[in-house]
Amino acid sequence: MSTLDPVRLIATKRDGGKLSSADIRHLVAAYTAGDVPDYQMSAFLMAAFLRGMDGQEAIALADAMLHSGTVLDLSDIPGVKVDKHSTGGVGDKVSLVLAPLVAAAGVPVPMISGRGLGHSGGTLDKLESIPGFRTKLTLDEYRRQLREIGVVMIGQTDDIAPADKKLYALRDVTATVEFVPFIAASIMSKKLAEGIDALVLDVKSGRGAFMRTEEKARRLAETLVRVGEDFDTKTVALLTDMNDPLGYAVGNWLEVAEAVRCLKGEQVPELTELSLALGAEMLVLGGAADTLREARDRLADLLADGTAFERFCEMVTAQGGDAGVLRAPEHRGRAQSVVEVTASAEQSGWIRGIDSLSVGRAAMDLGAGRHRLEDEVYPLAGITLHVKRGDRVQPGDLLARLHTRTSDLAERLVATVRQAFEIGEQEPAQRPVVIDRLAEGEWDSLRG
Amino acid sequence: MSTLDPVRLIATKRDGGKLSSADIRHLVAAYTAGDVPDYQMSAFLMAAFLRGMDGQEAIALADAMLHSGTVLDLSDIPGVKVDKHSTGGVGDKVSLVLAPLVAAAGVPVPMISGRGLGHSGGTLDKLESIPGFRTKLTLDEYRRQLREIGVVMIGQTDDIAPADKKLYALRDVTATVEFVPFIAASIMSKKLAEGIDALVLDVKSGRGAFMRTEEKARRLAETLVRVGEDFDTKTVALLTDMNDPLGYAVGNWLEVAEAVRCLKGEQVPELTELSLALGAEMLVLGGAADTLREARDRLADLLADGTAFERFCEMVTAQGGDAGVLRAPEHRGRAQSVVEVTASAEQSGWIRGIDSLSVGRAAMDLGAGRHRLEDEVYPLAGITLHVKRGDRVQPGDLLARLHTRTSDLAERLVATVRQAFEIGEQEPAQRPVVIDRLAEGEWDSLRG
Repeated sequence: MSTLDPVRLIATKRDGGKLSSADIRHLVAAYTAGDVPDYQMSAFLMAAFLRGMDGQEAIALADAMLHSGTVLDLSDIPGVKVDKHSTGGVGDKVSLVLAPLVAAAGVPVPMISGRGLGHSGGTLDKLESIPGFRTKLTLDEYRRQLREIGVVMIGQTDDIAPADKKLYALRDVTATVEFVPFIAASIMSKKLAEGIDALVLDVKSGRGAFMRTEEKARRLAETLVRVGEDFDTKTVALLTDMNDPLGYAVGNWLEVAEAVRCLKGEQVPELTELSLALGAEMLVLGGAADTLREARDRLADLLADGTAFERFCEMVTAQGGDAGVLRAPEHRGRAQSVVEVTASAEQSGWIRGIDSLSVGRAAMDLGAGRHRLEDEVYPLAGITLHVKRGDRVQPGDLLARLHTRTSDLAERLVATVRQAFEIGEQEPAQRPVVIDRLAEGEWDSLRG
Repeated sequence: MSTLDPVRLIATKRDGGKLSSADIRHLVAAYTAGDVPDYQMSAFLMAAFLRGMDGQEAIALADAMLHSGTVLDLSDIPGVKVDKHSTGGVGDKVSLVLAPLVAAAGVPVPMISGRGLGHSGGTLDKLESIPGFRTKLTLDEYRRQLREIGVVMIGQTDDIAPADKKLYALRDVTATVEFVPFIAASIMSKKLAEGIDALVLDVKSGRGAFMRTEEKARRLAETLVRVGEDFDTKTVALLTDMNDPLGYAVGNWLEVAEAVRCLKGEQVPELTELSLALGAEMLVLGGAADTLREARDRLADLLADGTAFERFCEMVTAQGGDAGVLRAPEHRGRAQSVVEVTASAEQSGWIRGIDSLSVGRAAMDLGAGRHRLEDEVYPLAGITLHVKRGDRVQPGDLLARLHTRTSDLAERLVATVRQAFEIGEQEPAQRPVVIDRLAEGEWDSLRG
């Protein structure tokens, strides 16, 4: 460490040079230890952002961040451990369905999730809307539950990838967030620290996604797959659409309730399809199925016969949650104020799209999300859509309901949510949820 | 200030956008006040470094830095106040000759100078090698001396351009030093704060200069002239050569003694020529001559008849210095150890060049300069050359003398200094000291 010269590394990157893996490791370690100050790191981040990092540098960065903290070893637990990560979206409750579903098919799912920030939700907030649910477990509890139930869902602990926490906070205030190698290193350092053997990625693009364009999402997916493979973690990425909200519900408890319907076998638009598509990849990676088709059929059965739902209830109970509200969601109650949004006099025709960014922001403003990480969420807040893209509406038809604490707050957002519905005379073309699939080596051949 | 959003400004520059003058002013003011942290400023600096700043942005930056502190008003002192700034070199004692020389011709010279850092010297260190000389004066003393003697030479005060001090320290540790708009803003904010009406710039290029290539020096000179004109300060820049050391002496007192010889009318290579060239520009800008030719002749007379030297002695006395050692430099004594460097058995032929970077670094190592700003200098340390480019040498001929505290230190540098002499069979071509002249508007027409 004594030979580390941050100014030389910054200047090398500034001039478009390539850093060695050792340089990147030293820099990240020294930064995490406080030996390199924020102002040098931010100059480096901006130089890298503007000059680029190649695949090897991105891998070295992910590696350095991964090894800045604890790397769990789950090798004593039988089975191929598989997790899923999503880049985040509006109404994305897939993890709630997927984790118990895949576990029910015999593949252990150790899932460490995050909280929502801005317009996109977080799995932890959704789980915590179930009364009593604990997202903080000790490492022993985490292992025991994974071994016994095959699925466990917790929040990130302080000792996992501390470099990522520090770097993320710095990137946020220095306009260096939207850079593929940084995003990839941030995601992969946390996921690889879980002790998983394989990973399925849901990389979203569209107006409600972190990556607005498919091209950017594809670049991120390629980098994620490459980093995963380099760490001997079988990795498959699905590129998926996030122009419209996923399913009908946006908001923590509202989404749990919708996930429950899906887990009980109901077909929920996008949600059922995406859970089956991602789940099939997890089953194949986990060695529980030979083909995606076979895996998909198994998963559909596990939804239809209630096995997946029972596994969810088991997990919730194990983590202190009240499974009673899952069996009878109406017992959880409704938000204090529920306000209807109806189509205006001009809104007549086909719904050509529902702006997920507007809907996500409105849900956040209603209390479902956070402007800052320290804000509290109102678990019952959110938006339920009553129509979707491809439906027809007439003036006065119910478009959505806003759930919040006070009718004042809801009334202020009615116009915004109404405008999120794009209505026209032409029926919109069909649009698949899954746009493409990226994998390397043998996983590449499993398509279709 | 309440609307300042540093992340937005960083992102704008990151994406190649242009910032308004108000944005730049707010950012610099907030940074100087401590409201914008170093880590945001360094991300901004790197984004600007890599994306560029146009002329208007450079001017806004200089303006913001200028107004971060005191801007002196010397309008109550008669005459057009003119100063000179050099980008720094090896053996550059021009200010010592120029300031009293131009003052002797009737143009007031209020000069605020810096200390040496690295291989290039600083005027303050040179002046302080004169026993008793004070480079710290009160503002009242500064004004009174300028009014009475027409020349005053002091160090930068804390209240002049504090933003520059803070930004320079940050640039130094974030690899964002060598960027023309930053360099120009740093120079001009300090110079314009002096209360001058006109400015002559000596922009050096070559291996001993801050700007290695003529092309970079030209870009800097153009920006400096443009900023100066924008502030209604008549500005002329000379592009000059800094491949070889300037004159024969490198080191603080050694350079004062050489400046004294020049002030007494002796022709010192490069030094006399450069003092006349820069001085002529100052006289014309100051309204004391109509053409450069006329100005040059006046200045040559003031050197030849001792007037310039007497003005130097007067200034030194006024600032507490011992003018006796200027009249009899041998009384100042020599360094404790003086070691000769002679030509090796292979060194026979024409001196084709003397590497000013090597000579400057060796002089610094001998005690004439500083590795860090807090180091102390040994005023008698340095190097005296005994031959120059274009001379012929034989093996065993004296090339230079090293002046330092201990012979050990000198002996260690003998080989380095010997290697700085490039000796070949061909006589080198003549090379002028002044490469080009840059000016705007009416000053442009005075060439020749």
